[in-house]
Amino acid sequence: MRRINAKRVLVGEPLDTARLGETLLPKRLALPIFCSDPLSSVAYATEEILLILALGGVTLLHLTWYAAAAIVFLMVVVVASYRQTCHAYPGGGGAYVVSAENLGQTAALTAASALLVDYVLTVAVSVVSGVAAITSAIPALSDHQVGLSVGFVVLLTLMNLRGVRESGRIFAIPTYGFVLVIYVMFAVAAVRYATGDTIRAESADLPIIAEGTFTGLGLVLLTMRAFASGCTALTGVEAISNGVPAFRKPKSRNAANTLAAMGALSVTMFTGITVLAMAYHVHVAADPTELGLPAGTPTSTALAQIGRATFGNWHFLFYLLQAVTAGVLILAANTAFNGFPMLASILAKDRYAPRQLFNRGDRLVYSNGVVLLALAAVALIVAFDAQLTRLIQLYIIGVFVSFTLSQSGMVRHWKRELDSPGTPREERIHIHRRRAINAVGACLTALVLVIVLITKFTHGAWLVVIAMPLLFVGMKGVRRHYETVAAQVAVAPGVRARMPARHHVILLVAAVHAPTLKALGYAQGLRADTLTALSVAADEEDARRLREAWAEHDPGIPLTLLHSPYREVIGPVLAHVQEQAAAEDTDVLSVVIPEYVVGHWWEQPLHNQNALRLKARLLFTPGVAVIDVPYLLESAKPVR
Amino acid sequence: MRRINAKRVLVGEPLDTARLGETLLPKRLALPIFCSDPLSSVAYATEEILLILALGGVTLLHLTWYAAAAIVFLMVVVVASYRQTCHAYPGGGGAYVVSAENLGQTAALTAASALLVDYVLTVAVSVVSGVAAITSAIPALSDHQVGLSVGFVVLLTLMNLRGVRESGRIFAIPTYGFVLVIYVMFAVAAVRYATGDTIRAESADLPIIAEGTFTGLGLVLLTMRAFASGCTALTGVEAISNGVPAFRKPKSRNAANTLAAMGALSVTMFTGITVLAMAYHVHVAADPTELGLPAGTPTSTALAQIGRATFGNWHFLFYLLQAVTAGVLILAANTAFNGFPMLASILAKDRYAPRQLFNRGDRLVYSNGVVLLALAAVALIVAFDAQLTRLIQLYIIGVFVSFTLSQSGMVRHWKRELDSPGTPREERIHIHRRRAINAVGACLTALVLVIVLITKFTHGAWLVVIAMPLLFVGMKGVRRHYETVAAQVAVAPGVRARMPARHHVILLVAAVHAPTLKALGYAQGLRADTLTALSVAADEEDARRLREAWAEHDPGIPLTLLHSPYREVIGPVLAHVQEQAAAEDTDVLSVVIPEYVVGHWWEQPLHNQNALRLKARLLFTPGVAVIDVPYLLESAKPVR
Repeated sequence: MRRINAKRVLVGEPLDTARLGETLLPKRLALPIFCSDPLSSVAYATEEILLILALGGVTLLHLTWYAAAAIVFLMVVVVASYRQTCHAYPGGGGAYVVSAENLGQTAALTAASALLVDYVLTVAVSVVSGVAAITSAIPALSDHQVGLSVGFVVLLTLMNLRGVRESGRIFAIPTYGFVLVIYVMFAVAAVRYATGDTIRAESADLPIIAEGTFTGLGLVLLTMRAFASGCTALTGVEAISNGVPAFRKPKSRNAANTLAAMGALSVTMFTGITVLAMAYHVHVAADPTELGLPAGTPTSTALAQIGRATFGNWHFLFYLLQAVTAGVLILAANTAFNGFPMLASILAKDRYAPRQLFNRGDRLVYSNGVVLLALAAVALIVAFDAQLTRLIQLYIIGVFVSFTLSQSGMVRHWKRELDSPGTPREERIHIHRRRAINAVGACLTALVLVIVLITKFTHGAWLVVIAMPLLFVGMKGVRRHYETVAAQVAVAPGVRARMPARHHVILLVAAVHAPTLKALGYAQGLRADTLTALSVAADEEDARRLREAWAEHDPGIPLTLLHSPYREVIGPVLAHVQEQAAAEDTDVLSVVIPEYVVGHWWEQPLHNQNALRLKARLLFTPGVAVIDVPYLLESAKPVR
Repeated sequence: MRRINAKRVLVGEPLDTARLGETLLPKRLALPIFCSDPLSSVAYATEEILLILALGGVTLLHLTWYAAAAIVFLMVVVVASYRQTCHAYPGGGGAYVVSAENLGQTAALTAASALLVDYVLTVAVSVVSGVAAITSAIPALSDHQVGLSVGFVVLLTLMNLRGVRESGRIFAIPTYGFVLVIYVMFAVAAVRYATGDTIRAESADLPIIAEGTFTGLGLVLLTMRAFASGCTALTGVEAISNGVPAFRKPKSRNAANTLAAMGALSVTMFTGITVLAMAYHVHVAADPTELGLPAGTPTSTALAQIGRATFGNWHFLFYLLQAVTAGVLILAANTAFNGFPMLASILAKDRYAPRQLFNRGDRLVYSNGVVLLALAAVALIVAFDAQLTRLIQLYIIGVFVSFTLSQSGMVRHWKRELDSPGTPREERIHIHRRRAINAVGACLTALVLVIVLITKFTHGAWLVVIAMPLLFVGMKGVRRHYETVAAQVAVAPGVRARMPARHHVILLVAAVHAPTLKALGYAQGLRADTLTALSVAADEEDARRLREAWAEHDPGIPLTLLHSPYREVIGPVLAHVQEQAAAEDTDVLSVVIPEYVVGHWWEQPLHNQNALRLKARLLFTPGVAVIDVPYLLESAKPVR
């Protein structure tokens, strides 16, 4: 079968498995690959807080400080907590692995369901908000958000099918570029304030039409919802602990340090952007009408407004900001393109997912997982019309489910280490500290999970609450199926293979030509107990012709002719074979099928339809083996 | 493989081929089956004439008389001409067969291309105009023409997959109903005129805004174009001559008489409808604005207007007319559902089309042809947005190409009969008469073809002028491919099958379990010159486990382990097999593949991906035969 060359052009030449070692990552490449998701989410986290508080009007915007402070605190705790995981699991400590080892199967599958859902959402949310950064700079593209988003997912898919090393290089530029431009923006803002400038966002004077008045419990809930929405800043933190094996040695230390660097960058950028948003009086709302603008007016993201206000007439820097923001957001989806296929492969290894997800493709990536993720993300983007505010409602639940399970698992992990008598004393002090950090992390993320569930359930999150159990049940079902099959095919040690007592062979004859003669010679070489030829004739004339042609080659074996007025082949042959296979003196029956092999895909529909259908049906006939004797036509022969 | 039950519900239980004889048609059923197309086309033929003449305004409508008279004359000639074909070709005398026998391959393939295109158009045009009859009665459905049309094509497809006999019964009612209601309408009109009533169509007082002034040559061309459009009344006349073998004996006489009956009905109905349209001053135009109505006003077909005017307050009869018109039009598509698959089957028999089109399905119809036709028609309906006026431009060219070729072929046929010395004298007089009829038919249809080409080319017919040569070239290509293959597989008589000198067998081992042991026993039973087992191991641990499991069953044959760090199976196994197959002492190499067989479609993706891909690749390795030893899991075992 010739390979289609388009594949080679798009994903590159196949790599040798021996080269997998070469794809280990230095820290400076690991950071952009694993951290583009948490870093980039600062691009929209502040805006999501403002959007929720805007429901209560301008007067509630000061609550942003509380929500942001809580998020910064949470971020520090979660990063510290996951650093422990890097040390404990140098082989990769994703929520699934940690839960499986410490909390058992149910917790592990729950974590896996949560992670799978969230990987898909990471792709959808990141790509859609990346496209929003583009349309903030170029409003003319506002009508093509779905097309652009899908296009970027396809691009990412192709890049990931090429393999992890090359991806790292491509991703380094926008990620580091994003961090740099954000810090430059902070510096410019600081200098301008220091020199007495007052900076105001373009939306600072727009009113915000409140949806209602929030007091008492309502106000608390709204603030909690704003906090929950801002927690998107935390998504993807677990990517590094998952990817420890991809680091260079010392793997754990390098991973933990990269995680700390990421945490520092995230916290400072998120804080800075929030401070500027408040200082510039950025006003945002889900719909332009709530800002007193006509419906359909293109609006800019909060970050774009901050950038435009800060850089003022330095348009170049504003467009650079939008470009790197879009770049890092779209590449953030790459975290999922690393994590999803790897998790799917682990699940497949544990027989919770179809076996194909376990295989690496010829570029040493889990190609099937990459494609599956892309399809799911495209479906979500199209179904939600590429609207970030709707997609983001589904997000975060899964993240915090896996955070909570992972941290809880780590607490158990350290407890076991402490219980083990072999652990040295000086080590025990460290372990106590690690356990305390993970315990705080587990409690805090569990609390946030409850808050997210309460505040987001009716706003779309119920979809995820349905999807996760479905995935859970599906994975259990796959495992059960594999176990049933394993039980059915198990054999006791010492059982020996049984040679068939009598072996009958039937040669199928469509016409008397070279492929048939080749198969006949082959069948005679099997030296079976009996060998008969079988063909189908439409009428007497047809039968006579076949018999004559058969006799011409003097094969010395009988030709059985089945009568079938319209040369319908499958039915009569199948019935005959089934009858023979069920006969008392038959132990095993082989059906030899001469088959043309053609080299071009368009030649395929012109041949072998009967052979293909017959083979598929014969597989279901007990006691029958199917022997394909291919005859290569010129177009199928290998080029010498 | 379990049959999906939905198929049985939709298309019925499989029929025995022996029952094909039972499906022969009496004349009263043959008429609706083969003639719904020509009969139903009188429902729109008059309107198509009026639509073209309306381009010149009200004053040109009197030219309808000339166009209609020419069409009636043409119809008589063509019917007479095709009656001769019924007598000459009792085995079925479609344009393809007649051209092939008398004019050679090129003419035959030209006719076949024309017929294939026209069958597709018959389905599209008939169904769309049937839907127009429905929306004339129920204007609320006007927005759903595409959906309704596609729905009816699907319905027809299912009916035809059930088989010809049952179809006949369903079709008899609307066809005879249509004829009956039309004659009742004529009678009512006659009585009302006789009693001094004046009847006027609802559109009689609407102006017609002319597109231009037509004089001289322009006027002649416009009249010719009106005539060409009205020639749709002739489509489908050849269906009976194609279907002679489906008639009861005496086949030819019965067919010729049915054709004559059809001709009489068509001519009288077409004449009557045209007379009433002129008498009632029916005004129609392609767009309501040309009648001085606001754009988007739902308009009625000419026949609907005639019916509404004739039946006046007898609403029941008007709705009955629309119902039977819609019914007969939609069923007219059935002519194509009979003709297309039969022609495709003949082409496949002559190796101009893929072999699958030659097979009858389990309900004794050419299922593949039926499905292919339906797909093409649906594509046309969707592409042309179910607009009759646009679709009808593509129509008729193919009809007249095949008419002309068929009649010319008949002239040749009779000449050969006359040239044959064995023909008796009294017979020769008959033959002279028949030849004269066919010669007139050939000249006249050739003339009409030229007119149609000239007047319709720029209005869309160019599409057909492109499609026909493409089909022609495609069919030639298929034939050439089959011939190349036939030459490659041909063997001289007396050549004997050669038994392989040395037979090597490789057993593929994925894991050591019951399916492997079964295949091992089978492989040992082949008593080949060598037998080795082959497996793939990811690492030393994996290799050790496999070797131990293998040794436990003491098979006495060596296990070769290939190293593949990520258990990528296809590549290493394929390379090993290719190397072995190319070895000098190998004559033929059999690869035995143990395969799980599961019973549910959803279990399929969980298994055998490697086996399937490997089998496909091995077929292309010279000197290798592939032996599938299936192991039926519980879900795949036949129910006793």
